[in-house]
Amino acid sequence: VRIEGLTIGDELLDGAVPDGNAAWLGRALDALDHSVSARLTVRDDIDAIADALRTITARADLCIVTGGLGPTDDDLTVDGLCRAAGVDFEFDAAAWARIEARYGDRAIPVSNRRQARRPVGGALLVNEVGTASAVELTIGTCHVICLPGVPREARWLFERHVAPQLPTPANANQLRIIRFALIGESTLAERIEALDLPTDVDVGWRACGPVNEIKLRGLAAVIDPLADRIRAALPTDHLGGHPTLAHATIAAACKAGLTVGTAESCTGGLVGAALTDVPGASVAFAGGIISYANAVKMRQLGVSESILKTHGAVSEACARAMAEGARAALDVDVAVAITGIAGPGGGTPSKPVGTVWFAWSGAGLDATRCVHIKGDRDRVRAFAVAHALDPIRRGLAATQRTLAGQRASTAQGESHGPR
Amino acid sequence: VRIEGLTIGDELLDGAVPDGNAAWLGRALDALDHSVSARLTVRDDIDAIADALRTITARADLCIVTGGLGPTDDDLTVDGLCRAAGVDFEFDAAAWARIEARYGDRAIPVSNRRQARRPVGGALLVNEVGTASAVELTIGTCHVICLPGVPREARWLFERHVAPQLPTPANANQLRIIRFALIGESTLAERIEALDLPTDVDVGWRACGPVNEIKLRGLAAVIDPLADRIRAALPTDHLGGHPTLAHATIAAACKAGLTVGTAESCTGGLVGAALTDVPGASVAFAGGIISYANAVKMRQLGVSESILKTHGAVSEACARAMAEGARAALDVDVAVAITGIAGPGGGTPSKPVGTVWFAWSGAGLDATRCVHIKGDRDRVRAFAVAHALDPIRRGLAATQRTLAGQRASTAQGESHGPR
Repeated sequence: VRIEGLTIGDELLDGAVPDGNAAWLGRALDALDHSVSARLTVRDDIDAIADALRTITARADLCIVTGGLGPTDDDLTVDGLCRAAGVDFEFDAAAWARIEARYGDRAIPVSNRRQARRPVGGALLVNEVGTASAVELTIGTCHVICLPGVPREARWLFERHVAPQLPTPANANQLRIIRFALIGESTLAERIEALDLPTDVDVGWRACGPVNEIKLRGLAAVIDPLADRIRAALPTDHLGGHPTLAHATIAAACKAGLTVGTAESCTGGLVGAALTDVPGASVAFAGGIISYANAVKMRQLGVSESILKTHGAVSEACARAMAEGARAALDVDVAVAITGIAGPGGGTPSKPVGTVWFAWSGAGLDATRCVHIKGDRDRVRAFAVAHALDPIRRGLAATQRTLAGQRASTAQGESHGPR
Repeated sequence: VRIEGLTIGDELLDGAVPDGNAAWLGRALDALDHSVSARLTVRDDIDAIADALRTITARADLCIVTGGLGPTDDDLTVDGLCRAAGVDFEFDAAAWARIEARYGDRAIPVSNRRQARRPVGGALLVNEVGTASAVELTIGTCHVICLPGVPREARWLFERHVAPQLPTPANANQLRIIRFALIGESTLAERIEALDLPTDVDVGWRACGPVNEIKLRGLAAVIDPLADRIRAALPTDHLGGHPTLAHATIAAACKAGLTVGTAESCTGGLVGAALTDVPGASVAFAGGIISYANAVKMRQLGVSESILKTHGAVSEACARAMAEGARAALDVDVAVAITGIAGPGGGTPSKPVGTVWFAWSGAGLDATRCVHIKGDRDRVRAFAVAHALDPIRRGLAATQRTLAGQRASTAQGESHGPR
């Protein structure tokens, strides 16, 4: 089936908001081995919407529309759909009853009646998470399904009403994604190509900040052994099925039965935020100290004034002292410290913007490292988060057995308190 | 002029990366009082690109293409452009010399010769930040400019080669944006509409998480007084020209000469990350304690075990103790504490997911508050950040004069150490 997308909304063309629905829909279809052949984005204008629908329905089998189903005057998707199909709309009593039920005792704005308009010959599909029903109509040989622009509602309606309609692809191809952190795309490509890939696998690449993804598409009998070979060839590099480096780090810490803490300067809380983005992170992540000011580095982490005076805050000595201080202050098994120059200001010839020192303390992972990260403030901070976490993930996976043995014999009965 | 956009790339339709160029281009044109009438996104396929260009050039005056100008086999923009125009391409010696100069002593991959292909009758425009020249060709009455997909290069080329070509809009309209945090769109609309708006102003709305924007477009002589009236009608609500709530908070703290610290539980570092996203934040933000585990709440913030046992970690008493503890531990003028249930797990009938307690200590802002935030983990955490910062921004703006007086008389000679 040829699937095309149509996004409706001035705010998307003006760049006020990114088209998150387009990205999400692309991924959702990709996972089902379908794809969007093309996407058109038009303004909140009846003629523009109708023209776009005429163009798309003349060549596609399925058109998925997002946006323009709200209750206000500039929500014109149903109007454009009716114009493109040459049909009128009628009042849908069942949809109206659902809107009334959602409002309960509250007064319903009269404008919400717009959301009960059904194109003649079409249908309004139940939305249990909002007032905008999905709208369905066939024009010529193309099936059109309109979803509201609110991402949560669009996803719910897609899963409920669109995905089940999609034909199972004849070739039964499946998708496997293997993720790697902090390996350059060219290095990764070299290592993978050396594996002598089967010809009946479609191999895709995607770099997303510090994480690189390899996508394998083909028959399960072919791609599953290949995925195993790739993981075996890069045994400590892949994230082991976890969607982010933070997920992989939390999982490694949970498996090792160890707790993690942070001492952040230039990342200012981003490492903690990434780890606590993982539901259930509290099992392994105890907390952190954001020591942005030198005074906090001294007071909370015990960094000595002489280190700050002699080496500066962005130095190996300071990073090491921060990590050791955090490990003690937070009473965790392993602590990571990050101190660097995120820019745009603060760089010097010997410590340019992007210079970041890392230190790890505890769990046998004691180490320091300096990384020079290229790019703007956002990129320096994002990559610094990855450089901070990756050695923990790798190290805990490698050492967990040894450590479990040590802990059992030396730390019996010890408690880290409620978490 | 009618401007249309064309985005080329499988990765955008598959949702592997969001179309950041589309969003940025929309904003850049919007700021110049131009706009993109429609956007088409197609795959890395010569026929799809050529078809799209034929459709667009038949109706637009300017077509801005992004993507597909790299050196690899799947970069097919020039091929599609030539096919749409019915012309061949020729080798551009000057463009090739620029690529050679960029490589210097390094070997140039032979594939880079693709980037020196010029459509007959067109031009390759100088790119000083990468190897992909912009490609220019007129098809019929439509001027087509192709920019590379790399955002930094696309922006540089747009500023250098596209923006100067755009006609100055006859009406000389300008754009003013006023931002508000944590005010509902309907409340805001009501307050603004009560101001009796002039008819020659185009008023736009945009809700972006906890921040709402009002966009005024019209002649400066009309919109500037209106912007003043709106700010006067909601004097403490608008963010005063700052792009984010964190920027406004840092600015208010700098102006008041006060330092800020954080104690975060469910936000796990997001408040610190938001504040340190502001370049120069170190003047006002000293640091924070991420007290995810109760043990850290006790050790680092001095929350008593009895509070945790009697009231629980998500409680007014715990939030207050966290804020007071952070203020003392970090030696800051004002501290904010956040403790809540971000979900998806952890909710109870009396404290459902989304229950968040806040407390502020110092600078005359002592207060506590409970907010019930709807939505998933990401939304709860994002809104919690806004609820944490907004009272600081408002409070410091209101109290800065009083406090400056108090500090001068009571805290003379006091030092907070290097920052």
